[in-house]
Amino acid sequence: MSKAVIITNGTINDYSFIKDLIDENQDFIICADGGIKHALKAGIDPHAIIGDFDSAAPETLTLFKQKGIPIIRYPANKDKSDTELALDYAVENGYKELLLIGGFGDRMDHSLANIMLLISLSLKGFKVRAIDEKNDLQVCLDEVKITGKEGDYISLIPITSKVIGVTTHGLFYRLKNADLEFGSSLSLSNRLTAENGWVKIQDGVLLVIKARD
Amino acid sequence: MSKAVIITNGTINDYSFIKDLIDENQDFIICADGGIKHALKAGIDPHAIIGDFDSAAPETLTLFKQKGIPIIRYPANKDKSDTELALDYAVENGYKELLLIGGFGDRMDHSLANIMLLISLSLKGFKVRAIDEKNDLQVCLDEVKITGKEGDYISLIPITSKVIGVTTHGLFYRLKNADLEFGSSLSLSNRLTAENGWVKIQDGVLLVIKARD
Repeated sequence: MSKAVIITNGTINDYSFIKDLIDENQDFIICADGGIKHALKAGIDPHAIIGDFDSAAPETLTLFKQKGIPIIRYPANKDKSDTELALDYAVENGYKELLLIGGFGDRMDHSLANIMLLISLSLKGFKVRAIDEKNDLQVCLDEVKITGKEGDYISLIPITSKVIGVTTHGLFYRLKNADLEFGSSLSLSNRLTAENGWVKIQDGVLLVIKARD
Repeated sequence: MSKAVIITNGTINDYSFIKDLIDENQDFIICADGGIKHALKAGIDPHAIIGDFDSAAPETLTLFKQKGIPIIRYPANKDKSDTELALDYAVENGYKELLLIGGFGDRMDHSLANIMLLISLSLKGFKVRAIDEKNDLQVCLDEVKITGKEGDYISLIPITSKVIGVTTHGLFYRLKNADLEFGSSLSLSNRLTAENGWVKIQDGVLLVIKARD
């Protein structure tokens, strides 16, 4: 099955990276509220738009409505964020692979809530990923593959108090069956030494982030 | 004892908030590497500058050196980030209260590593806080006080799988002895209803973030 792509309201300045990530013929594309502005700028027609629409421009919403795209409106005092509603909608539609675009910005509460949401979906068996122009975030519970180019920054960030048995391949500073402690910056800003690498762990939850300045 | 202020290399566009946070006569001010550019722009002379200096402009470094400010240089292939070295230095100098400025930016690996570092220091008994122009982040292990103005966004983000017995005061959506689950966005974007509020918890680790758009 193809993947669901959720476009949400974070910071995006450069739209060139988006088209490579989305297969418009295959993927199920959902915009969360203000994320419609990114879809518009990237020239993407979503399959559904979800939210309380406190952050979406009415004219953009009208434009997509006129194209016949379903708009699912929730009350503003709902218990879930627009991003969570959009992810739920993807899950209800049977998607197991979830890609979040625009999940990070200068509001750390939103960025963190999105990351925690993806981690909790990962723990429920979904394959999750969050990408913007600076960051490519994956959740490692056993193994994740990294693709990029030589020299890309790779950071490993423990979410549990310990991550046990970390082994890396294709990274400049190698780890072999190492334990990483929560809060340590030891594994920040490693470097990819080839186009492909991987990280395996035995126990815990580890964020694997490919970043560029 | 006064507090230590660590100025690091994240995104700051508006320097007006910094002067209110720092007592230049009392606080111990440390710049981590590229954080010196923020000190320069804010007109603050730090008491020490620490890092491998891969992100600091040489002319700014020279300027502070000529003022007689101690510069502590580490090798680039060290095991700790510049921010962690600066926090360690504050701890070695006996400070129990640590304020991080410039800890957030568009590189999520750095932003997250800084937050995890502050959480681990909080778990060791330090009083920690990270502030920039958009975010005011505290770690709640038992109780945190919030000061702001009516309508400020307040988000509660669980870091442990559960946070038990959460009670709030001064927030629009009230919680009374509630349990929050990791990954839930239920407690995102609450609002302060007065100039003061507080959050108490019985068990777990909770981030309390005051944010503005």
